[in-house]
Formats: sequence, C-alpha cells, structure tokens
Amino acid sequence: MSTADIAKQFTDALKAGKFDDAEKLWSDDIVSIEAMDGPMKEMRGRAAVHGKGEWWFANHEIHKFEAAGPYVNGDQFALRFSMDVTPKESGKRMQMDEVGLYTVRGGKIVEERFLY
Amino acid sequence: MSTADIAKQFTDALKAGKFDDAEKLWSDDIVSIEAMDGPMKEMRGRAAVHGKGEWWFANHEIHKFEAAGPYVNGDQFALRFSMDVTPKESGKRMQMDEVGLYTVRGGKIVEERFLY
Repeated sequence: MSTADIAKQFTDALKAGKFDDAEKLWSDDIVSIEAMDGPMKEMRGRAAVHGKGEWWFANHEIHKFEAAGPYVNGDQFALRFSMDVTPKESGKRMQMDEVGLYTVRGGKIVEERFLY
Repeated sequence: MSTADIAKQFTDALKAGKFDDAEKLWSDDIVSIEAMDGPMKEMRGRAAVHGKGEWWFANHEIHKFEAAGPYVNGDQFALRFSMDVTPKESGKRMQMDEVGLYTVRGGKIVEERFLY
C-alpha cells in the first residue's frame, strides 16, 4: 500500500473512533514522540504506545475529538486534531489544537510525532 | 533562538504578509519539497526557493491565504494553510488546505516540506 492508502485507512479508522483498526496499521516497533519533556516524551514499541493511549483516554474526559486530513508527502502524512477535553487531574476543560506527523515504512506506521 | 522562537517569528511574518521578513529566517541552503512530482518537486538554495515563491504568486490570483499555528516538536514546526486561489492558467478557482512542515538547524529554517 502507498503512504496515501495507509494515511486514508488510518484516518478513516480514527474518524470512526475505531482505534483498534488504526493500531493494526502500526509497525510493532512504532515510536511515539511528544513535544514536551516527561515520562511520555518517547515511547517505543506497540505495547508502550498502546499503553500511552489507554492512559490518555482513562485520564481525560473527551468532549470533542476531531481529525482532519490526511495531508501526504513522500513517506509521511499529517493530521490535524481539534480536541476539547477535561484532564481528570486538573478538572480544567481545555481546547487543544495539534498536528500529528506519521512516518510510514514497509507499509506500516513506524513513527507518530505530535506538534503543538 | 529556540525552534519555538523561530516558528513564532516566521508565522507572525507570514500572517502579516511580510514574506521578506519570513525569508530572513531561511538558511541560505534551504530546501523546499513538494508532494507532487514535477519541476518544483525539490528546490535547493535561497535563490531557487525564492524563485518558486515568486512564480507561485505571479501565477495565482489569491482570494484568501490563512496560516494557523505554529505547532512545535523538537527541531520542527508545522503550519496549517487555508487558501482560496485561482491558478491563472486554468482559471478554475479552488480551495486548498495543506500542512507546511519546517525543520530548523542552527537558528535557521533548513527545510520546508508541504503535505497535502
């Protein structure tokens, strides 16, 4: 599959809330990179990255989660995320707007990187 | 300057339509990469990339050009562009939505890459 094909399947799955289907497009060696320092700055491997997602969903009340795109160039694609969430720890509702940048190799997503 | 500082200055200049100021943040060796094959797929060096911009502005009637961001991670930042343009060759007005991904090294933008 081309990067554009992977990008479309991944985006369709996210937009439909089918996160398990999206994760099927990950490489087992996927790396997930946040912009901020901290324990989740860089997670390596399917189990760690899946765990990061589980943590995020468990610790945020999600009022809105919208993905736009994909935008493709070469072996990369980007998505725009608009979120309206309340972190359970702070209780402070916030609107977040970010870009997810994905790198594809061998038909699988090997890296996700979040810019904000 | 940090990537975030460069990103903010560059974005402020674009939003104000001050393209000369934005180009001051380029490295002389800047590389500009489009998603589509063709003569402008990869332009190298300040003169070539500036020429590409000149060509684009000369060959499009611009009804709207909006930049949102920046979104930062490490040595990269992204911008979202929303454009409403009429290419003079086709005369067909179109709405375009894309992501610009910029890489900073030594306090200068060394690469711009457009995803769409």
